[in-house]
Amino acid sequence: MMLKLAGKTNVKSKSAFPVCDMMVGSDMLLIAGPCSVESEEQIFAIAEQVKSGGANMLRGGAYKPRTSPYSFQGLGRKGLEFLKAAGKKVGMPVVSEVVDTRAVFLACEDVDVIQIGARNMQNYELLKEAGRTDKPILLKRGLHASIEEWLNCAEYIMNEGNERVILCERGIRTMETYTRNTLDLSAVAAVRELSHLPVITDPSHGTGRPSLIGPMCLSSIMAGSDGCILEVHYAPELALSDGDQALLPEQFAAIASQMKKLWMFRQSLVEE
Amino acid sequence: MMLKLAGKTNVKSKSAFPVCDMMVGSDMLLIAGPCSVESEEQIFAIAEQVKSGGANMLRGGAYKPRTSPYSFQGLGRKGLEFLKAAGKKVGMPVVSEVVDTRAVFLACEDVDVIQIGARNMQNYELLKEAGRTDKPILLKRGLHASIEEWLNCAEYIMNEGNERVILCERGIRTMETYTRNTLDLSAVAAVRELSHLPVITDPSHGTGRPSLIGPMCLSSIMAGSDGCILEVHYAPELALSDGDQALLPEQFAAIASQMKKLWMFRQSLVEE
Amino acid sequence: MMLKLAGKTNVKSKSAFPVCDMMVGSDMLLIAGPCSVESEEQIFAIAEQVKSGGANMLRGGAYKPRTSPYSFQGLGRKGLEFLKAAGKKVGMPVVSEVVDTRAVFLACEDVDVIQIGARNMQNYELLKEAGRTDKPILLKRGLHASIEEWLNCAEYIMNEGNERVILCERGIRTMETYTRNTLDLSAVAAVRELSHLPVITDPSHGTGRPSLIGPMCLSSIMAGSDGCILEVHYAPELALSDGDQALLPEQFAAIASQMKKLWMFRQSLVEE
Amino acid sequence: MMLKLAGKTNVKSKSAFPVCDMMVGSDMLLIAGPCSVESEEQIFAIAEQVKSGGANMLRGGAYKPRTSPYSFQGLGRKGLEFLKAAGKKVGMPVVSEVVDTRAVFLACEDVDVIQIGARNMQNYELLKEAGRTDKPILLKRGLHASIEEWLNCAEYIMNEGNERVILCERGIRTMETYTRNTLDLSAVAAVRELSHLPVITDPSHGTGRPSLIGPMCLSSIMAGSDGCILEVHYAPELALSDGDQALLPEQFAAIASQMKKLWMFRQSLVEE
Repeated sequence: MMLKLAGKTNVKSKSAFPVCDMMVGSDMLLIAGPCSVESEEQIFAIAEQVKSGGANMLRGGAYKPRTSPYSFQGLGRKGLEFLKAAGKKVGMPVVSEVVDTRAVFLACEDVDVIQIGARNMQNYELLKEAGRTDKPILLKRGLHASIEEWLNCAEYIMNEGNERVILCERGIRTMETYTRNTLDLSAVAAVRELSHLPVITDPSHGTGRPSLIGPMCLSSIMAGSDGCILEVHYAPELALSDGDQALLPEQFAAIASQMKKLWMFRQSLVEE
Repeated sequence: MMLKLAGKTNVKSKSAFPVCDMMVGSDMLLIAGPCSVESEEQIFAIAEQVKSGGANMLRGGAYKPRTSPYSFQGLGRKGLEFLKAAGKKVGMPVVSEVVDTRAVFLACEDVDVIQIGARNMQNYELLKEAGRTDKPILLKRGLHASIEEWLNCAEYIMNEGNERVILCERGIRTMETYTRNTLDLSAVAAVRELSHLPVITDPSHGTGRPSLIGPMCLSSIMAGSDGCILEVHYAPELALSDGDQALLPEQFAAIASQMKKLWMFRQSLVEE
Repeated sequence: MMLKLAGKTNVKSKSAFPVCDMMVGSDMLLIAGPCSVESEEQIFAIAEQVKSGGANMLRGGAYKPRTSPYSFQGLGRKGLEFLKAAGKKVGMPVVSEVVDTRAVFLACEDVDVIQIGARNMQNYELLKEAGRTDKPILLKRGLHASIEEWLNCAEYIMNEGNERVILCERGIRTMETYTRNTLDLSAVAAVRELSHLPVITDPSHGTGRPSLIGPMCLSSIMAGSDGCILEVHYAPELALSDGDQALLPEQFAAIASQMKKLWMFRQSLVEE
Repeated sequence: MMLKLAGKTNVKSKSAFPVCDMMVGSDMLLIAGPCSVESEEQIFAIAEQVKSGGANMLRGGAYKPRTSPYSFQGLGRKGLEFLKAAGKKVGMPVVSEVVDTRAVFLACEDVDVIQIGARNMQNYELLKEAGRTDKPILLKRGLHASIEEWLNCAEYIMNEGNERVILCERGIRTMETYTRNTLDLSAVAAVRELSHLPVITDPSHGTGRPSLIGPMCLSSIMAGSDGCILEVHYAPELALSDGDQALLPEQFAAIASQMKKLWMFRQSLVEE
């Protein structure tokens, strides 16, 4: 693998960089929020709930890549505005996915972190455009992507001048059908040995089952993850997308509390 | 699967539509050419060779999506111009991949068919932009995509008004490592029962091994394929991309000759 | 790959060997019958039907490896006896699966060909026991097995002294769910270049859908297959196992007829 | 899933059962030892090393299922005797794989726990024979097996009367090549909700890389695992099988120490 920038050739120790008042890579990142921004009321309500539950970044999709063109496609620009306002209200930075090169710079006005989704992981034009912005990029691993291909996508972004890439393992597609995907935690450990970049996990998409999200969040941390991104909704059965895998706010709070204790335990283990 | 346009709800029998003087869906489509357009001389030479070998459409990549940002990325616009000129010289329509929404309409000036590659299969903005042009679209299946997801991508294109979609099975990623990918010929038969759209195969990417391309071309036809797309180079060892899987012009001609005989045999079998 | 016996080190050209009055490897092998032998009446009726439909070997399971211990497990020894009698009645050799080392030699009294199933492909003790018999062995590829692992399993059999191995590609497990498995026809072509052994395909298990079996049988032949094994039942809805993928006798006869024509076409293509 | 015995229909809470003086399912199980028993000296030396490093059960293969018949196949019965003696010497129960129905009862004389390996997970005759013994069974998940299929294999064993089954996740085969397999930790969490049986993990086979074993052991525990099985060798470069993935004794001791602290932390988390 020729990873001049994402690899450990030049930067030997682990990278950490600020996103608002947090240091991603050294502080535990806990991103939460709905799959889609559905309305101003919805995102404001969930923002309050995840903030009080322990999140330190707010997520919400405005441009939704959906399997069918007839499914809900997100509120678009309006969704980003609601998200920004909700983040400002509760005092959390916000992250949202961008799916079109032409929308990248526009989105920078509203979001603190730009997400590149799994389906677009190898949309190299989008990666390059994201690499020309000054926002941190949350880069999800593709459903079928090898660790090497994924790290090369980070390299595409960094090669344009933006070195603040956060990798996100979100499950690969395997023959298993009980879980929606297979969350590959060995990939987290592998990234830690191959790259200096921070890496988090997405157990919501990784498992597709609320009952498995808690164990996978805790498991991720011991694999070396710098945090998690989770889908939370106060009424999963009414969600316009991915309701099946959404946590209730109280479930999220319970998981967040355990994650924080484990995070401290991990630090004590390392320091010994 | 809700496939209003790509499915058989409205169009019951198989679709066929013209590309220049060919009827895709009823005539056998045989696309050949280099992986990348490398120079004017190269594409002109190969164009002559595949034309005389039996091809009826010329391929050549100008915008190359590569795993590493440090690999050859294609000649870009210049490559499309050389390709167009080569096609004109030998009297064949040309097809080339587009990877950026902003380049779709520009590419329409040079190519007869627009290709959406495997990595961009679920780049929905690109699909929608392609759906707004008046060019036929060659839609490759993603490495990890289910048949249902792939047909829904055709639906995205058609939903914008462009009904001329040619599906292309190019191999899925499996645990097998002897072949580069696993060419899924049951997907060809499945598309024939689920959709009215033409479907071809790409045994070059599907197998990654010249020795297996011939058998897979013939096998594809009996699975119900409307043709093949093949990579041909007069000096595979010097090719700037994918040289390992390129056929020599004489190998291509031998395969093309067998495919034509088999195509006629298949028609005789159906007519009985 | 170190394939002293299954590879082409010593035997350069393709092997063919007799099973009763057929030459497997040069004559087209067409094995048909029910998934399970369910009763004397059932196997006698289906034997007649597949014989008149064009089969030249009869299949029928007596020891059924089932996912759940509470599913029908087969008639056991009694099933083998019914199968033998049915084969004798219609004049066809018979093949059946053996799943226990202790039953291999006993089964030799009843069957002409011993089948090793996909789940037992790497049950090396069973392979070795089969290698000590004088019966041809039909060796199915495991759901997850690489081509190299599969050929090494043939090597295990041959290393015990039995060189009459017939390989059978029956589909590998992939992320696709529309088909039960993914029939890997490039593996057939690969076996033809790596080994001298005959190789057939099993489109019944490979696709799990009767509508796709016909195209896959024809497709297999052009990939280089020496024949097919197919599940046939006169009342699929009443079958005690795998009824969903069984062909009706008349569907089988139609496919067999097309296969024979294609087989002759393939020979004419090779001889040119 | 109809899991009368392995599921939670009758037994609602988690099972625990004794193996010598340990309670598997409530005490942390830490199995270690060489891939293969290579000599009396080797197994005695490693037994001492893993005992002092923190292991509470000794592993060592005597019957090795190998991809090629020409690879080292294990010492057989002799290997079991050495293993038994080594376990007795250091005061640890021993576990070893059995691959032949005819060897199951014989092996019971030497081992405390019988292992069914991944390749034989669906060798139902072997499962049934193991189910007729009075030894606990360590049942590895097949490379390609769904969680449902795996639990049904436990059901096969239990249906014969032996309810002491320990499940072992050892990695599934995916498209990733950086790791030998993909250790599926969500399967551990899934087993905890679907079954009352204890479940452990095998990060040695799961990752194939010593550097990733530590993180995966810790990660496993937070996913709900009851312990780990690890390959340890004092001279990995001289090992007759799987040397690439063996830990040195000192690496093992460091991992064991961290696992024990994490185990206590997990208990404190649950009790709150």
